[in-house]
Amino acid sequence: MTLFQMTYTAIPDIPLIEQGADLADIILHGMHDLKQEIRSGDVFILAQKIVSKAEGRMVDLQTVQPSARARELAAATGKDPELVEVILRESRSILRQRDALVIVEHRLGFVCANAGVDRSNVQGERDEYGRWVLMLPEDPDGTAERLRLQIFHATGAEVGILIIDSHGRAWRMGTVGVCIGAAGFPALLDLRGKPDLFGEPLKITQVGLADEIAAGASALMGQAAESRPIIHMHGLPYALRAGHAAELIRPHEDDLFR
Amino acid sequence: MTLFQMTYTAIPDIPLIEQGADLADIILHGMHDLKQEIRSGDVFILAQKIVSKAEGRMVDLQTVQPSARARELAAATGKDPELVEVILRESRSILRQRDALVIVEHRLGFVCANAGVDRSNVQGERDEYGRWVLMLPEDPDGTAERLRLQIFHATGAEVGILIIDSHGRAWRMGTVGVCIGAAGFPALLDLRGKPDLFGEPLKITQVGLADEIAAGASALMGQAAESRPIIHMHGLPYALRAGHAAELIRPHEDDLFR
Repeated sequence: MTLFQMTYTAIPDIPLIEQGADLADIILHGMHDLKQEIRSGDVFILAQKIVSKAEGRMVDLQTVQPSARARELAAATGKDPELVEVILRESRSILRQRDALVIVEHRLGFVCANAGVDRSNVQGERDEYGRWVLMLPEDPDGTAERLRLQIFHATGAEVGILIIDSHGRAWRMGTVGVCIGAAGFPALLDLRGKPDLFGEPLKITQVGLADEIAAGASALMGQAAESRPIIHMHGLPYALRAGHAAELIRPHEDDLFR
Repeated sequence: MTLFQMTYTAIPDIPLIEQGADLADIILHGMHDLKQEIRSGDVFILAQKIVSKAEGRMVDLQTVQPSARARELAAATGKDPELVEVILRESRSILRQRDALVIVEHRLGFVCANAGVDRSNVQGERDEYGRWVLMLPEDPDGTAERLRLQIFHATGAEVGILIIDSHGRAWRMGTVGVCIGAAGFPALLDLRGKPDLFGEPLKITQVGLADEIAAGASALMGQAAESRPIIHMHGLPYALRAGHAAELIRPHEDDLFR
């Protein structure tokens, strides 16, 4: 009997992350504290927020000069013009706007609210809460690949890395964790041509595997604090491969809901 | 140091499910084979397909009389008129149709392709593959609640039950597991009013927790076979409560993407 088991473990006691923090080092020390070996096939899932903080993606809204378009959208949404300016700079286009809700296509291709620009859990240099906002990482796939290589060089283990955020969805209530950056992981699992139980072609042929693993990790991270922003996962029932979050973005021409 | 750990375990050696199968009994025997005790707070996640089969939700397409509307949509999609008739009977409305793709609002409120009607992994009485299709369970929340009570009466453990399917998404490639039936589980987690790290209100206030747990379980189930259709999960970092999949359906008036 082969036991199929997937275990998510939160790396304990992660300090508040500041600009320049070495996330690979934090992962290596955390696994040491857990007395767990890092094995090839393991996956580390990181909350976007700590990656953004380590990369210094904070913006002081007092330094932002809003454009005319930002002022107009600020008036329509009731948001600060400076915040809207940051959202617009991080966006390719606005898909929908109603009341305070702004759904954009992020410059990275994801559709999400407020371009992922976040005010909570961000504190500025002189404790000026609310003046600072946090943008998504500059290049989450690139960051994931650098972390993957750092862990490989330190341990010899081939791991997968996912950087995740919480997104709202069309049609369904509540946010779920989704993958916005990946390395060494089959982000989109292609099962085309695989047979079903009776040898006939499968109905479902492409699985958003990175989003499935991100969602499970997100449940363990929680939302209210940053104390569990890095999750170790063991037991993925698929082989790792080179792969990126960009695989998960549906081409415009195939998307019926824009 | 409190260890936050979530473990998904596939219940091994589940037989092919036939109409009338006692799924609670299969869960109890499976946990016994795993030598694992069922504890309050545990969650069982079941693939929709085995629930539908146990409930006899198969339809022989040769017994279906397609309406004029089904014939019209069949011509537009290239699908069999009988299959389209079953899809229409299971749907409240059609949101989008392009080529062979039909996105509907299911009678249960979920937005999904083909109303969840599935041809793969279904075999009829005389091995007539492809003539039979499978519909979603009649009342997945009700089925989940019955399973929850059966397990409570057998063990005294208060568990959560999720019945899940794989859905495509707007904007993102690949399907992910989502919750279509739930009992004893905080399907939509309400964090409104909870503080962030610095005591300010959280950005994210409603989490689709049942969908997050469903997605992780779906990754372990796989798609190609039915050999892992029931997953046991231990370590949810939230308390269970009464709750239903219906919580996850976004009201039409709040939905910007219909």
